[in-house]
Amino acid sequence: MINFEALYKLSYGMYVVSSGDHKSGNAYISNTVFQVTSNPPQIATCCHKDNYTIGFIQQTKAFAVSVLHEHSSSDIFKRLGYKSGRDFKKFEGIHVKYGVSGLPIVLDDAIACFECELVQSIDLGSHMMFIGQLIHSELLEEASEPMTYAYYRDVKKAAAPKKAPTYQAYIGPMVEPDTKGPKRYQCLACDYIYDDAEHDLLFVDLPYDWECPDCGSPKSIFVEIQ
Amino acid sequence: MINFEALYKLSYGMYVVSSGDHKSGNAYISNTVFQVTSNPPQIATCCHKDNYTIGFIQQTKAFAVSVLHEHSSSDIFKRLGYKSGRDFKKFEGIHVKYGVSGLPIVLDDAIACFECELVQSIDLGSHMMFIGQLIHSELLEEASEPMTYAYYRDVKKAAAPKKAPTYQAYIGPMVEPDTKGPKRYQCLACDYIYDDAEHDLLFVDLPYDWECPDCGSPKSIFVEIQ
Repeated sequence: MINFEALYKLSYGMYVVSSGDHKSGNAYISNTVFQVTSNPPQIATCCHKDNYTIGFIQQTKAFAVSVLHEHSSSDIFKRLGYKSGRDFKKFEGIHVKYGVSGLPIVLDDAIACFECELVQSIDLGSHMMFIGQLIHSELLEEASEPMTYAYYRDVKKAAAPKKAPTYQAYIGPMVEPDTKGPKRYQCLACDYIYDDAEHDLLFVDLPYDWECPDCGSPKSIFVEIQ
Repeated sequence: MINFEALYKLSYGMYVVSSGDHKSGNAYISNTVFQVTSNPPQIATCCHKDNYTIGFIQQTKAFAVSVLHEHSSSDIFKRLGYKSGRDFKKFEGIHVKYGVSGLPIVLDDAIACFECELVQSIDLGSHMMFIGQLIHSELLEEASEPMTYAYYRDVKKAAAPKKAPTYQAYIGPMVEPDTKGPKRYQCLACDYIYDDAEHDLLFVDLPYDWECPDCGSPKSIFVEIQ
């Protein structure tokens, strides 16, 4: 038996993974970035196969990572996490630099960045895991703490704004089943509202692979609203 | 150019990874455990090739993970992280249960546990990455926070006891090169002391693959003492 709440006890950071070149590129929000060996330093990251960035990683055989700090703006998650680069130029209006490898690197809200050359690609089913050798890294802001996935969820919960962008990564459903009575949930991508009172099933009881009927976004990006 | 301090901005949890069966088994401390897909749920972990547990994982084609909480005792790190199961029975004197798969699971200081069936093994050079499909998970203690790698380092630094067991994982060197003048460092495994005053090289300038001359432990498990 799998207790999904147990999975919430795993710890992650919050990152931007990017790839491409001076002409075109894309980036997405990820919580799965890990150093997997030290000699040589290799970094692993996971990318959903539907993700627009995946083509750039496979083409350039390289990817960059920006580490987000604890006070990163909601904008960066909305821009890079909840929209697709297929129909939105993610780099327009934010700070991007081109690294020693020519990779685009997102600087907004970043405290460190890494450039990696692809060494291995592992098929995980829904996702690819990319393992890259670290060729360049920079500390951009020493004093700031990296954002952890837990911090992101907890702070949003504490502040409880009406439209809190409680970012929930694709790797697991994060809506907690402690609801009493009907509630309302809004899609962060297209603003579609799921009102429990209008449906046979409560939102929390919808299957994990349920998608927004308007824009096809995953259940995990819905947030509770009042 | 690689700035190693940038790597300290990556976030991790702290875990016990175990394998074996009722008759024999072993466990080690790891900071690299992460969920890599949600459908089906798969968990990845990295294991140094010299690690005694690796044989049990390859033999049983399975591994278990215990998530350590924020107030885990130093004992658990000393026992499972700084000694080898080749010459020390790690499970004697602690609480171990046998899971649905027959795997030994360490319960001391654990707030959640996972049992995984091995799906893929990836050669990373110094380490193997094991990807397992989650077959069983349990929440053992809902209220406690998981220990993060950063928390472990920060709390030890804040308390600054003379023999602080500032656990430092194998994946990266964690001694910060901000030393002024000679200092003394002690091996947590065998208590050997490296006194800067008695050597040509400062401890911080020793190569990353330097080992304790008495017991062969990695440089990373030395702590500064007064």
